[in-house]
Amino acid sequence: MDKILIVGLGLIGGSYAKGLTKMGYNVYGYNRNKDAIDYAKKNKIIIDGSSEFTEDFIGEFDRIIFSLYPKVFKEYIEKYGSFIKKGAIISDVTGVKESIVTDIQNILGDSVEFIAAHPMAGKEVYGIENADEKIFENANYIITPTKKNTDKGIAFATEIGEALNFRKISLLTPKEHDEMIAFLSQLTHCIAVALMTCKDSEDLVNYTGDSFRDLTRIANINENMWTELFLMNKSALLKEMDSFINCMSKLRDFINNEDEEKIKNMMRLSTERRKYFNK
Amino acid sequence: MDKILIVGLGLIGGSYAKGLTKMGYNVYGYNRNKDAIDYAKKNKIIIDGSSEFTEDFIGEFDRIIFSLYPKVFKEYIEKYGSFIKKGAIISDVTGVKESIVTDIQNILGDSVEFIAAHPMAGKEVYGIENADEKIFENANYIITPTKKNTDKGIAFATEIGEALNFRKISLLTPKEHDEMIAFLSQLTHCIAVALMTCKDSEDLVNYTGDSFRDLTRIANINENMWTELFLMNKSALLKEMDSFINCMSKLRDFINNEDEEKIKNMMRLSTERRKYFNK
Repeated sequence: MDKILIVGLGLIGGSYAKGLTKMGYNVYGYNRNKDAIDYAKKNKIIIDGSSEFTEDFIGEFDRIIFSLYPKVFKEYIEKYGSFIKKGAIISDVTGVKESIVTDIQNILGDSVEFIAAHPMAGKEVYGIENADEKIFENANYIITPTKKNTDKGIAFATEIGEALNFRKISLLTPKEHDEMIAFLSQLTHCIAVALMTCKDSEDLVNYTGDSFRDLTRIANINENMWTELFLMNKSALLKEMDSFINCMSKLRDFINNEDEEKIKNMMRLSTERRKYFNK
Repeated sequence: MDKILIVGLGLIGGSYAKGLTKMGYNVYGYNRNKDAIDYAKKNKIIIDGSSEFTEDFIGEFDRIIFSLYPKVFKEYIEKYGSFIKKGAIISDVTGVKESIVTDIQNILGDSVEFIAAHPMAGKEVYGIENADEKIFENANYIITPTKKNTDKGIAFATEIGEALNFRKISLLTPKEHDEMIAFLSQLTHCIAVALMTCKDSEDLVNYTGDSFRDLTRIANINENMWTELFLMNKSALLKEMDSFINCMSKLRDFINNEDEEKIKNMMRLSTERRKYFNK
């Protein structure tokens, strides 16, 4: 039962493989591009792997973790879902849940259990060359079971989260997960991108202090992955964007009207709420 | 010429006093509340001080730095400007410039030179008890001379910036300073306050990663100081807020229309511009 397949050896899949190998799992890998397989074998991140998604190879595993972009993940399950061994449990690392979990569970039917999970970790670099299992140490790991999931499925996802040494493992519904991600992660990336693009600020670099740097660190963004994540969580994200734009506009109007008390009240609420987030 | 008076022994004034004392200056202090004077004397941050702003005390100094909120600074100059010794040079630490520099220079006339400066440093705590001259080490120091200033005045402000070991000392016009501050500092504080207040996020604290914490660190805000700074830089700040709200709204519409190419182009520009700000 310590044999596990990671599908997709990018930054996250590679970091999973590294961490699980360190914990004594027998880790195998699939990756479309053979270079990543060669690199992973050479560096003892996996025991063996394949760059071809064949029934012979895939059908051997009782446990598989898909580390792919959400749309590609869905495509693989549509095309190759039948290759997966009956009775196997599969999981994922996808950053959106509502738009994929039920669909994938429906495609797989009763013979394979899909338990969705989201490691809330990352780096601003890509590829297995940058894989690093330490990115999970201070991060959250969210499992999003549905009614179709069993205790055995949830136990598998939990085991992976524990083996990778996440700071905190939580259970949320796919909907709760997507609302949380829309606010805490997607909205913050939208804000960083808007701030970075609303002014040609190159000549200001010499005057930049910590606050501007803090707010724009995530403005260095993988446009393919994040566009996909935004669009797959569109309605939850638009709700948070509208609510934020509305708050910015209110503050703008308070300043325009020189309404000192309303500005100060907003700042007091801000200070009070921020206290919960002090580490 | 190493005798210097700091007016206002709060966090910034106290940190100035500490740093200048360390560099061998003979530092004296004025503070309305006597406790800060007692603390500063006891801790050898100043040689001596007064909690009364009298002509006898003030008139002794050739160099004075006012570390007060902008409106209070203006009030002190209006009421007590005539106490300052003829030929003295005074400076400040105020975070807005256009709305105070010319006014104060006009009140003082030709007998006292006011050279404005802004140490772009701070902490989320207050008072001389938290004074720490190290906050200047990685910070910028901006001198904003006008036509009324002399080389001698600029040299004094520069000397203070060097003595306090700022990372970089720059000269800007008051207008350039205020535009830069509106974007890099005031807009970022507005964003943090809006983000922190647009949702009751207390139940999300367990899922919060670095990006949300980075964007809201400055949401813990001194409402009296920042409201004053925002209103004294109103037109420059409103311009930046409008431009940012416009960019957020554009991104919102691209997502609503599922216009992938436009979202990706915005993210590419964001990534490209962020590179200039990598330390």
